[in-house]
Amino acid sequence: MILGDTIVAPATPFGHSGVAVTRISGPLSFPIINRLSKKNGFSNRLATVCSIADSDGNTVDRCVVTVYKKPGSYTGEDVVEISSHGNPTTVEYIILSVCAAGARTAEPGEFTKRAFINGKLDLVQVEAVASLVNSKSIENTRHQQKILRGRLSLSINNIRTKIVSLLGRLEHQMDIDEEEWPTAPPSWLVDGVDAVYLKVQHFKKTSKFGRLLNRGATVVIAGPPNVGKSSLLNALSQSSRSIVSSSPGTTRDTIEVELLMRGVPVLFIDTAGLRQPKDEIEKEGVRRTKNFLKRADLVLSLTDGPKSKKPLNAGAPTLSVLNKSDLQSNKAKNPSVIHISAKTGAGLPLLKRKISQQLGINKISTDSPSLSTSRQHVAMVACSDAIQRSRSLIKKQHLDIEIIAFELREALNAVDALLGKTSPDDILDHVFNSFCVGK
Amino acid sequence: MILGDTIVAPATPFGHSGVAVTRISGPLSFPIINRLSKKNGFSNRLATVCSIADSDGNTVDRCVVTVYKKPGSYTGEDVVEISSHGNPTTVEYIILSVCAAGARTAEPGEFTKRAFINGKLDLVQVEAVASLVNSKSIENTRHQQKILRGRLSLSINNIRTKIVSLLGRLEHQMDIDEEEWPTAPPSWLVDGVDAVYLKVQHFKKTSKFGRLLNRGATVVIAGPPNVGKSSLLNALSQSSRSIVSSSPGTTRDTIEVELLMRGVPVLFIDTAGLRQPKDEIEKEGVRRTKNFLKRADLVLSLTDGPKSKKPLNAGAPTLSVLNKSDLQSNKAKNPSVIHISAKTGAGLPLLKRKISQQLGINKISTDSPSLSTSRQHVAMVACSDAIQRSRSLIKKQHLDIEIIAFELREALNAVDALLGKTSPDDILDHVFNSFCVGK
Repeated sequence: MILGDTIVAPATPFGHSGVAVTRISGPLSFPIINRLSKKNGFSNRLATVCSIADSDGNTVDRCVVTVYKKPGSYTGEDVVEISSHGNPTTVEYIILSVCAAGARTAEPGEFTKRAFINGKLDLVQVEAVASLVNSKSIENTRHQQKILRGRLSLSINNIRTKIVSLLGRLEHQMDIDEEEWPTAPPSWLVDGVDAVYLKVQHFKKTSKFGRLLNRGATVVIAGPPNVGKSSLLNALSQSSRSIVSSSPGTTRDTIEVELLMRGVPVLFIDTAGLRQPKDEIEKEGVRRTKNFLKRADLVLSLTDGPKSKKPLNAGAPTLSVLNKSDLQSNKAKNPSVIHISAKTGAGLPLLKRKISQQLGINKISTDSPSLSTSRQHVAMVACSDAIQRSRSLIKKQHLDIEIIAFELREALNAVDALLGKTSPDDILDHVFNSFCVGK
Repeated sequence: MILGDTIVAPATPFGHSGVAVTRISGPLSFPIINRLSKKNGFSNRLATVCSIADSDGNTVDRCVVTVYKKPGSYTGEDVVEISSHGNPTTVEYIILSVCAAGARTAEPGEFTKRAFINGKLDLVQVEAVASLVNSKSIENTRHQQKILRGRLSLSINNIRTKIVSLLGRLEHQMDIDEEEWPTAPPSWLVDGVDAVYLKVQHFKKTSKFGRLLNRGATVVIAGPPNVGKSSLLNALSQSSRSIVSSSPGTTRDTIEVELLMRGVPVLFIDTAGLRQPKDEIEKEGVRRTKNFLKRADLVLSLTDGPKSKKPLNAGAPTLSVLNKSDLQSNKAKNPSVIHISAKTGAGLPLLKRKISQQLGINKISTDSPSLSTSRQHVAMVACSDAIQRSRSLIKKQHLDIEIIAFELREALNAVDALLGKTSPDDILDHVFNSFCVGK
């Protein structure tokens, strides 16, 4: 990517609507908009009505143009926002005209990438932008908003400052005299490393909840044919997106419904019944079900009577659920099994509570922001491991300052990677490629 | 509709994107945005970054807010535009918060309806806004842009002024003395009515082209099975959206491709082959084909050999086309038939030219704006008819000023309806219901 060039992209979705916004960023933004609008400049941030013409001088649309002078813009560069009529043809023609005047179309996430390169956002905030665009619940939106505003970055930078301070003292010590180093670890080192370790552990622990809120969870409903898997899905979603029938094997393919549980998007998958397949299509269905079971965060193993077959070996956390609790034969309660009736709705609140507990949804708190992506989690684990290794070294008989300092530097590198200070290009590409064009 | 209330709606399409714009209009717009942003007012038209909170004070998103003080806004009322992250959840929550603070969600076209009621746009311009949102070609966009900027309204108002002036002189005459009225029509009346008539005739004539550009045309490809209807559609669209097969009766249902011909969206429909149907499905296909033929602007009656069956009676203008002109048996040219080869592409440029001529596309000029909707056309025809009647009266032996004035008043009413000065509510509702929400 050449930062010297000027990029353009639609910032609003494709479609017919009241308005559409097209964004330009880069050194040519202002010359280009002056040329297309035949004006001699715009006041910073002042929404200005003007006509946009193509290079032949034909009016494309009458628009509202707002310019943002660098560095006070989203990207940190000169930015122009053109608000035109909401028509894909119009937007396409505006972009063609902007490109003819010297810009090029932007790659996915390129506006945010420029904000990152220009120091407007760190990589944790960049990921919050992507999450804000893709968030499925207001709870996650609020959480990511806190992260975008820098509250998570602040906590991570606090950890970073502590590590840097410890490293500083260690390196100062190494500079003076190796002979004078005490054999017993000094309390500032023991306490300092322990304090960092506690902070890091906190983030490692809460990252499960942050990722749950941001990415959601998958619950697979499995069991023999005709025990009421589709009925359960229907009862859970209180909709009729699943076909319910009394003949076995109705659900050959999977049916999915996404439900919000305290802000967590939980994807419920109603699978093909697990039984000896009679034909190729059923065989494929059972094969797919087994795949789903492996990837599930939670499996609901559904039966409809006490004469249970061998328990389902899903390879994922499993809740045993007995459907048709309204039938006389199912009245005797088995305490390890959740009794429900998809038909009457009995037991469903309990089942939802158990699902929430099992997934960890009930423990989510967004009072302080949590790590929210796998990339962030992996970096924090690397930091935690390095600090744990330095703690072990401190406890050894003979103190080796250089190796302790090496491990703390490893921890520092992990934090810097987390914030994007030292992330390799392929990691950056991975983060930005998840964006839509125009952000 | 109560104009005293405040409305809110998303102005950009539903979807995940860089930004989404939410619009508020009405007397509570500014109090509401002050409350949600916890600010004491915004500078007019100055894009301002601030957080938007719900009624409980929870931050929903950090947004760019631009306020437009009345009457210098789109609707003529106080307007607020909130540019948030492009996420349906966020937009929904912002709208909920705005509604909780005293607004209600807008009906389709309600923003533009307010612009109309507040005199920012006449009805011809309102229809141009709808056309700009739905336009499929840059040519039509440019044309509608001219109309929105008032160039068509100006011409129509010129006609109106001329009629009003004639009516004024007539009514002045009636006031003075009936006895003094000359038996021969005065030249100012003859010339004046003739001049108006000429102008109105011009608009009546060009409205065909304006509507063609704005609404498009439908061309149906019909003919016996296996003459290459799908191949012709493919060749025309240079794509593979139509299934081509050598076994007769492949195209049971219709396949449609929309192509732009000099800015006119022309919908080509590949119909089921017209032959004696063998089963119910084919019968239905033939029935649908006959329906399409009736509604077509042009029918391409396709055959693949000189031994033509009885000519197709489509009930619409028809071009006879002979496919497979590359075959030896088709070499003898019939001058009334267009010879093409969908396979080699021979004859296709001629066919396209003939289609363009037949539909009138070749005659379109947008140098001066044309009437673009059926509503406008119907009003102009009513005006034309009334003026024609007054011309006939003028030519009669005995001049009856009162009846001539009556007809000119009819013409004036038609022009006023065209501009929306006197349109009944059901006509207005029809116009605004064609809008999307948020415009």
